[in-house]
Amino acid sequence: MRAAVYHGKNDIRVEEIAEPGPPGPRQVRLRPYLSGICGTDLHEYAAGPIVIPTAPHPLTGAAAPQVLGHEFSGEVLEVGSDVTGVRTGDRVAVMPLIHCGQCYYCLRGLNHLCSTMACTGLSWQGGGISEQVVVPDHQVCPLPDTVSDIQGALVEPTAVAAYGVDRTGFRAGDTVLVTGAGPIGALVTLYAHAGGASKLIVSEPNAKRRALIEALGVATVLDPLVDDVPDAVRELTGGIGVDVAAECSGTEGGLSVALASLRSHGTATQVGLHVAPAMIDPMALSHRDLSLIGTWCYPVHDFPRITALIATGRLPVEKVLTEVIGVGDIVARGFERLLDPAADAQKLLVRVNS
Amino acid sequence: MRAAVYHGKNDIRVEEIAEPGPPGPRQVRLRPYLSGICGTDLHEYAAGPIVIPTAPHPLTGAAAPQVLGHEFSGEVLEVGSDVTGVRTGDRVAVMPLIHCGQCYYCLRGLNHLCSTMACTGLSWQGGGISEQVVVPDHQVCPLPDTVSDIQGALVEPTAVAAYGVDRTGFRAGDTVLVTGAGPIGALVTLYAHAGGASKLIVSEPNAKRRALIEALGVATVLDPLVDDVPDAVRELTGGIGVDVAAECSGTEGGLSVALASLRSHGTATQVGLHVAPAMIDPMALSHRDLSLIGTWCYPVHDFPRITALIATGRLPVEKVLTEVIGVGDIVARGFERLLDPAADAQKLLVRVNS
Ligand SMILES: NC(=O)c1ccc[n+]([C@@H]2O[C@H](COP(=O)([O-])OP(=O)(O)OC[C@H]3O[C@@H](n4cnc5c(N)ncnc54)[C@H](O)[C@@H]3O)[C@@H](O)[C@H]2O)c1
Ligand SMILES: NC(=O)c1ccc[n+]([C@@H]2O[C@H](COP(=O)([O-])OP(=O)(O)OC[C@H]3O[C@@H](n4cnc5c(N)ncnc54)[C@H](O)[C@@H]3O)[C@@H](O)[C@H]2O)c1
Ligand SMILES: [Zn+2]
Ligand SMILES: [Zn+2]
Repeated sequence: MRAAVYHGKNDIRVEEIAEPGPPGPRQVRLRPYLSGICGTDLHEYAAGPIVIPTAPHPLTGAAAPQVLGHEFSGEVLEVGSDVTGVRTGDRVAVMPLIHCGQCYYCLRGLNHLCSTMACTGLSWQGGGISEQVVVPDHQVCPLPDTVSDIQGALVEPTAVAAYGVDRTGFRAGDTVLVTGAGPIGALVTLYAHAGGASKLIVSEPNAKRRALIEALGVATVLDPLVDDVPDAVRELTGGIGVDVAAECSGTEGGLSVALASLRSHGTATQVGLHVAPAMIDPMALSHRDLSLIGTWCYPVHDFPRITALIATGRLPVEKVLTEVIGVGDIVARGFERLLDPAADAQKLLVRVNS
Repeated sequence: MRAAVYHGKNDIRVEEIAEPGPPGPRQVRLRPYLSGICGTDLHEYAAGPIVIPTAPHPLTGAAAPQVLGHEFSGEVLEVGSDVTGVRTGDRVAVMPLIHCGQCYYCLRGLNHLCSTMACTGLSWQGGGISEQVVVPDHQVCPLPDTVSDIQGALVEPTAVAAYGVDRTGFRAGDTVLVTGAGPIGALVTLYAHAGGASKLIVSEPNAKRRALIEALGVATVLDPLVDDVPDAVRELTGGIGVDVAAECSGTEGGLSVALASLRSHGTATQVGLHVAPAMIDPMALSHRDLSLIGTWCYPVHDFPRITALIATGRLPVEKVLTEVIGVGDIVARGFERLLDPAADAQKLLVRVNS
């Protein structure tokens, strides 16, 4: 079968590999529909291996070469003998994290912080950009008929966005600033809108991405290279500042603007992954009673809730999608394009099987 | 009457001033017992006026010259016609903040973030380092017989320390790191101990202050110039890291150690006031689901709770006191000494009346 396999830095090959063997008792064989490429994949390609293990992973035994794809939807082809949650033919989204269940964090329900965390498509015997993959049954989240294959492939990044907002204590009616309108910032915007934000403001320097956010029709869009964002935010919020700021750019500039745009006692969430240390103003944190909350992935049990929200129609996640490409194009039209800062791709999905 | 009056930078005079007139209907005349000198006072002396207004304060009309003293206990000499909470002869602690009651923050119970905040001893017609002072009646918090005059004068900094701990969601049994063992860090340590911390670790480079904390007998004390604090913290917490870190040094080093010593999903509080921007590692915030929460002063309604806790005997705040000086010594043995980094003063109080 055909799969996109990571062999090392700048070396992703679309190649023939062996089909996975039969699923274990609590495993499921899937036929992936569509799969996303995320920032972690890009880092592995440009500077890796970082997350992808070169020696067998302590939990899963996986090591490079690694089939990619951890944001995907698919169809159940076969279930193991003890699987009860899904049946052959079911359409599912995949929650890719694999946790030990026994460590300090797993025992406290913080499975996404598991000390030996693995992930399908990064440190598991298979991934979503593959004609077939076998995954643990706790990873599959059934999709109702009203949630499309494309929406299903976007549940994973939406869970990232949702956790960022949830960790702030966001409530319906709150005012929200989002810094950075990549796929994550766009999904934060849609999720906060679905949750009843009374005002949404997005700051993004890339004109094409500003246009995409404008087109969502739910936010006031600012350009941090032109606008004084904290001033503009205060003007848009009656002189007060926003209740919640979601930093989705992974930049020092985005973080400083997020903190400076908060009302006193407001909360910023650090969703974007910074690649370098950043300067902040801790005096303002103290003086204005501000909170800055880092967020990592999502609680592993969030997928059914996100899927149910998408099913209501209130979270049109497909609007962040700009293109679907074929597996054969994954390097040239996928990785290389997403890494080019001048390119205009937003979220793109790889069509694996139709 | 005699008072310590701030005239400007490096200009504090102990001088004769007029007694205050009769208290208004909701005001109280006090005879202060003892008053603290805090970091804000030191900043005003060394680099001010910063907080002390030079033009009439919008809420109180006060302006320099300003009688100092905002951490004090005293005796009620006279009450206004509409005062019901205290009587002549009562011993009280003073909650010095004065808020407008009408702004965005006051309406939400966040009076300590009032947009026109004033403070007795900084921006009010009087202060605690004075033979008498008239204050609004909402400022006075009666002291039970079991709380001493000295303890009463320490309620204010204890409220700062308590709010820092409270904002983290600290619970009995939690493990806690404190960076910086000045008076605030020492009070954080005592408050966390009173609240049931199962392990307390304090990091402090000054040997005299380390000895003072050792003497409290409730914490493991580390020297950040010698120890690798995050490593030592992990060793002391079974390889995990602390649940809560309270940054009480106002330094970049203290902040970075506080964040690095947390377990994943842990919370640091920024109590120390930084005088410059600081580098942090936002990647660690995200990757480990960390929270960093700034804290400013305290809720204005916290004084009775803190006082009641002191009255139980479980919060021996007087242990942070190293010296009581006379008003006449306030500059030489107070301000100048506290500003000298080599000096060994910890918390000192000024005896105003006995
Ligand atoms: N916390 C998590 O678990 C998690 C999971 C997935 C992705 N992420 C991170 O979230 C971030 C967003 O992901 P993405 O896929 O949307 O990335 P992306 O790179 O596509 O989007 C980032 C956006 O920020 C914009 N930007 C740059 N500087 C800015 C500034 N000063 N102000 C405002 N915007 C600015 C860029 O133009 C870009 O559009 C990334 O840092 C990614 O690594 C975090
Ligand atoms: N948030 C508020 O509302 C509020 C109110 C009052 C005071 N404060 C602030 O709280 C902080 C503590 O107050 P204080 O009166 O105890 O001040 P302090 O200056 O007496 O104590 C600070 C201590 O930190 C120590 N220190 C310096 N570098 C360190 C490091 N790298 N690691 C650990 N310790 C280090 C110093 O040796 C000193 O003992 C100050 O910054 C003060 O301005 C804040
Ligand atoms: Zn685990
Ligand atoms: Zn107010």
